[in-house]
Amino acid sequence: MAQQHLDPTDPTAGPAPTGDALAGYLRAQATEFLRALRQHRETGAAHGGTEDPVDAARALRRSVRRISGSLHTFRPLLEADWSEGLRPELAWLSGTLSMEHAYAARLERLLLALHRLSGAAAFPAQAAGVSAVVDAAAGGRDTPPADRGNLTVGAAKAGALLDRQLTLARTRAHSTALQALGSSRFHAVADTVAVLASEVPLTAVAHTADLRPHAAAAEERLTDAVAALPLVTAGSPYNAEALIHGLSPDPSPHPQDAPWHQVRLLLRLHRYAREALYGTKGPIDVRLLTAGQALDRHRDAAEAAAAAAAAARTPRIAPATAYALGVLHADQRHEVEAARFAFQQCWQKQTVSTS
Amino acid sequence: MAQQHLDPTDPTAGPAPTGDALAGYLRAQATEFLRALRQHRETGAAHGGTEDPVDAARALRRSVRRISGSLHTFRPLLEADWSEGLRPELAWLSGTLSMEHAYAARLERLLLALHRLSGAAAFPAQAAGVSAVVDAAAGGRDTPPADRGNLTVGAAKAGALLDRQLTLARTRAHSTALQALGSSRFHAVADTVAVLASEVPLTAVAHTADLRPHAAAAEERLTDAVAALPLVTAGSPYNAEALIHGLSPDPSPHPQDAPWHQVRLLLRLHRYAREALYGTKGPIDVRLLTAGQALDRHRDAAEAAAAAAAAARTPRIAPATAYALGVLHADQRHEVEAARFAFQQCWQKQTVSTS
Repeated sequence: MAQQHLDPTDPTAGPAPTGDALAGYLRAQATEFLRALRQHRETGAAHGGTEDPVDAARALRRSVRRISGSLHTFRPLLEADWSEGLRPELAWLSGTLSMEHAYAARLERLLLALHRLSGAAAFPAQAAGVSAVVDAAAGGRDTPPADRGNLTVGAAKAGALLDRQLTLARTRAHSTALQALGSSRFHAVADTVAVLASEVPLTAVAHTADLRPHAAAAEERLTDAVAALPLVTAGSPYNAEALIHGLSPDPSPHPQDAPWHQVRLLLRLHRYAREALYGTKGPIDVRLLTAGQALDRHRDAAEAAAAAAAAARTPRIAPATAYALGVLHADQRHEVEAARFAFQQCWQKQTVSTS
Repeated sequence: MAQQHLDPTDPTAGPAPTGDALAGYLRAQATEFLRALRQHRETGAAHGGTEDPVDAARALRRSVRRISGSLHTFRPLLEADWSEGLRPELAWLSGTLSMEHAYAARLERLLLALHRLSGAAAFPAQAAGVSAVVDAAAGGRDTPPADRGNLTVGAAKAGALLDRQLTLARTRAHSTALQALGSSRFHAVADTVAVLASEVPLTAVAHTADLRPHAAAAEERLTDAVAALPLVTAGSPYNAEALIHGLSPDPSPHPQDAPWHQVRLLLRLHRYAREALYGTKGPIDVRLLTAGQALDRHRDAAEAAAAAAAAARTPRIAPATAYALGVLHADQRHEVEAARFAFQQCWQKQTVSTS
């Protein structure tokens, strides 16, 4: 539980934040949602604005996550019917809007990994970065250079295959997101958020209610979930746990990843709860951010590993392609393990320094 | 340089060991060679002895390495013609005798890794250990069970392929070793070692010469080679260095492994030099042993990774087999990285505690 401190830079110092602070936070996020939506429409329609539609989409997802998270953490302070109606709609929107970016990021991660695994000399145009991999991949498919080993052609073909599959998935996700943004379902959500930007449906007692027990409960859910993680194993480098089911018959997702994904979500809810209590302008808790980045990396690597495994199940691929995808899968599962280690190191520091 | 100490358990205490100590050490190793050779012939011929021919072969290799190493480290103290004539013969013998064991150990390492990567539930008879993997692999080749995913069949087929290739290599190495032991070349080596067991050809001044400068030079060569290793990188867990050329066109061995292999050999020479100076009955330097074990693991994992990559170049293998071999290759390259980390940790402790 938060206590009164004497440190003037401590964001938890001062009077207890109440429902009014929550209302202010929700109004700000709703306003941000509307701004991002307007920007997204302008940049998406004109194709000539100075602002990036990717930035607008990111800002949209950001605000949706924060509104959704606050509805969850501070549920008893908000009108139940309104809140229960909006939450699944925000979840739908957040899921729909995030897919395109996720596929693009996954492809970039996998092509960078292929590039790294192929060594600097493997691709002549390596200085050009990722695009060189894609070019080499496309080239390797048609005219495999005689002076390259079989496995490098495999890496090139694996890159080309992943490029095809994930670009297709991204294109589909883009269409789905555009359709969603034009749907009556979306317009209903946007209308609700537009109202939220001026009027937050708090319950009668919420205006003066103390936010801290709700935020503390969110933190406790996080702490409990972290306590259930295998942190002793994760803190022992090269424990080889993440790849342990690398060739198991059960395809992704790995069951061992689920508790880490759950902690990632709970960490985010905890972070948003702190924002609602103490504002977004206060000092950032770097350790929370670092822990969150480790869990993002964990999630991204796990999904990239699954994408490599899925690509390997494509019918009629060459053995060299499959071999490269196997190396890539294992590489990303080791990234999963590395991310767990990073989280453990960060979390341990946090626990020690705040005790 | 070793100095006089007061600690009575310190093996370096007491008068300086001279060429006579070296002669005693070489006589003892030559006697051990002859004993192991006799044992190897008896167990190999009768197939009914109480002693294992594998143990005899190991003892033979052990003594050959020690004689060979001593000839190298204490070269100026031994008759040049004799020493220069014997050294290449011992290297030939050591190489020839080690191959069979190396292939057997490599196969066992790879099948254990496949078993681990397939998860506990992948093979029904997992309690039976490695042989279950081989059985499942053989079974999977003919009748792939319907309830297993493609990749588990891949793991089984990869296991069967490695089993065929490495068993064949081991059988050939066994024949080669038997032929070598029956050759006139070998009999000439055995005769030389038989003479060594009673009479060591020291130079005129060697009997009273101090062994310590020669041992110190061996230690210095080790220290210099360790100083040239990328230990800062190795000490940072999950640095992803070992797999960096995992898909490069240049097949094994990885150039980055060579300095580590070199340190492994120099560490061994240092250990044998200590034995020559202070005897084999004294207290064992556990840290030297641990460092040596980490480097053995490094070498074994590097060679296992190369074997998996080589198996993946077998024509006409199924994509699922190639995928499993890719995962296996990456897994063993991560073992390489883990071994470097283990060496770094061990060496750092050593440096700190003896400084």
